[in-house]
Amino acid sequence: MASASASLSDERFGLDRRITLLGPLPLDCGAALAPVQIAYETYGTLNADKSNAILICHALTGDQYVASTHPITGKPGWWQRLVGEGKPVDPSRDFIICANVIGSCMGSSGPATVNPATGEPWGMDFPVLSIADMVRAQALLLDYLGIPVLSAVIGGSMGGMQAISWPVLYPDRVRAALVIASTARHSAQNIAFHEVGRQAIMADPRWRKGAYYADGDVPASGLAVARMAAHITYLSEAGLTEKFGRRLQDKSGKDCSGSSFGFDADFQIQSYLRHQGISFVDRFDANSYLYITRAMDYFDLAEPHDGVLAKAFMGTRTRFCLISFDTDWLYPTAESRRIVHALNAAGAEVSFVELSSPFGHDAFLLECPEMNRIVDGFLRAGANA
Amino acid sequence: MASASASLSDERFGLDRRITLLGPLPLDCGAALAPVQIAYETYGTLNADKSNAILICHALTGDQYVASTHPITGKPGWWQRLVGEGKPVDPSRDFIICANVIGSCMGSSGPATVNPATGEPWGMDFPVLSIADMVRAQALLLDYLGIPVLSAVIGGSMGGMQAISWPVLYPDRVRAALVIASTARHSAQNIAFHEVGRQAIMADPRWRKGAYYADGDVPASGLAVARMAAHITYLSEAGLTEKFGRRLQDKSGKDCSGSSFGFDADFQIQSYLRHQGISFVDRFDANSYLYITRAMDYFDLAEPHDGVLAKAFMGTRTRFCLISFDTDWLYPTAESRRIVHALNAAGAEVSFVELSSPFGHDAFLLECPEMNRIVDGFLRAGANA
Repeated sequence: MASASASLSDERFGLDRRITLLGPLPLDCGAALAPVQIAYETYGTLNADKSNAILICHALTGDQYVASTHPITGKPGWWQRLVGEGKPVDPSRDFIICANVIGSCMGSSGPATVNPATGEPWGMDFPVLSIADMVRAQALLLDYLGIPVLSAVIGGSMGGMQAISWPVLYPDRVRAALVIASTARHSAQNIAFHEVGRQAIMADPRWRKGAYYADGDVPASGLAVARMAAHITYLSEAGLTEKFGRRLQDKSGKDCSGSSFGFDADFQIQSYLRHQGISFVDRFDANSYLYITRAMDYFDLAEPHDGVLAKAFMGTRTRFCLISFDTDWLYPTAESRRIVHALNAAGAEVSFVELSSPFGHDAFLLECPEMNRIVDGFLRAGANA
Repeated sequence: MASASASLSDERFGLDRRITLLGPLPLDCGAALAPVQIAYETYGTLNADKSNAILICHALTGDQYVASTHPITGKPGWWQRLVGEGKPVDPSRDFIICANVIGSCMGSSGPATVNPATGEPWGMDFPVLSIADMVRAQALLLDYLGIPVLSAVIGGSMGGMQAISWPVLYPDRVRAALVIASTARHSAQNIAFHEVGRQAIMADPRWRKGAYYADGDVPASGLAVARMAAHITYLSEAGLTEKFGRRLQDKSGKDCSGSSFGFDADFQIQSYLRHQGISFVDRFDANSYLYITRAMDYFDLAEPHDGVLAKAFMGTRTRFCLISFDTDWLYPTAESRRIVHALNAAGAEVSFVELSSPFGHDAFLLECPEMNRIVDGFLRAGANA
């Protein structure tokens, strides 16, 4: 969708849209990453005064293909309901950037990319990352693209953690932040679910302390179990009941009335989860799952500010919009409200809406006209200011 | 605690309190189990008119040691807060029976016991069980003990599934049923969590389709992950936050202020979960975990009654008491209320209390004076009737 006549075009950046920056990028863990590879997609054209750039931040298992076909799965962009022609984030008006977070596995630096010191994949020698490190890498990309200030940063779930971190780390580089179904810190329960997933991966003998790249015999079983456990947290109890209830299925996947009294996937919810686990393995790296979940667990925006969240936002001139979903038990509304309270205490401009949805945390990725209207209204209000 | 002068004493049943009945016990899956081994504990003395027998039903990973020391862990009885001298269920007044459910691994017939057809452990050739099958095995034990009618049946969690099933399966054999932190059916979310646990076990290469008894090289990693995932559901989000929050610890397990930026158990919740997983492996059999979770998933008391729960209770003369906990998200109050509605529709005598606790599902096993008062009052009301 990028126009070839603009200064930023497909031609300039090549088709794979992957840059290698020299770095070093200083990381929160004390190490520095060099070089820094960033794979990204853009949609639309940067305008002359460079004022129309919107950064979209992806979630744990997301990627840069926010509004274009995923090269492995062939599925449409993961947020094409929000991003696209005629949508609230529109490439005919906005210059849209979405970058694979560092630590991930779709082209940006991560455990599967090459450690220049050894010429081999990093594996578990890749430095431990934080959400702030991911944001700093995005800022490097914006430098490279010549974008001084973002019109807006938008993210859901882990993308929301990045979006809320942007104005804290770069107060002068972002005019508006949209934080959806997210949180300013990971709770004990959030950490617990991630720990189960990591233990499942590390318990898989094929994990081999992360050194499985040479023969490609990946810890698929462990990663699938991790994905299954996580997937439960993405859905609401009511949504699960509505979608699956206690319905049984026969071996072909159809509804049926009799249970097998065995360990096959009698219940539809079982085969759904198994499918989620197995299909995930084809598109995601187990080590990346370890690194990104760990970064999320470390996330606590208040921590570097004496534990007072409001201090993180003091003096901010960014406009904020927070959206939560009433059935989201992963990052419940109370967490968004906590952010709103802190923003209010810091004197920030903030709007907040809790939307009703039966679909739990996943709601932000699904058809939600109300969410689209709010995002559109919030972005347009900024354009008119 | 059993008196040697009574007709039912330690002397009569031997110290290990394990009986082998000829059977066959017809099972819901269509198979029949023979012989039927039942390991159990009793406390107190059966009175002359055999009217003081109380059956306690244990939960998924529980056992018969309700009020006496566990032979493997050395820990005190799992419900000694409720059962014991001066407690609501008192061996100086009641004859208390607790039997290891069939399918389990503390002496009753299960995948680790010997298949008479082969002389080897059953493994996955053990027939798939239901909650009703467990109850029918308990009825066999009562026959053997010469107890025609139970004064009461009491159970929490999966024990509550048995307790609520007792009056349905044996309407003339139980005067009162106490159902705590339980449900009349497993929800899609309940099934989903169990499925993750089973997949973790079956993904462990040491599981070997359940045939790991010969060399004792058990699927410990998979079982530990299963336990960790389940354990999250036993605790409330608020309880986890209160107990662990985002607190870090050093390698010795003490509180500390700095994170390691690694994959060690930085957070206290991580090491707690890992400990839960590892210690569970010492006392529980992975195949038993598969069979018992499956029995729970199949549990739907309304299903054999055209899906109408009230029909299950029609004509009942049993008195019921239901207790739920407000932070229990595994079997939330709504599930208890559903049972109460059905009992009301069936004209049954039922009382119901939702208790407040920060501890989620686990609350029924913890110190809870209010629960004790309710149990005591309910049992005494029956004695006075």
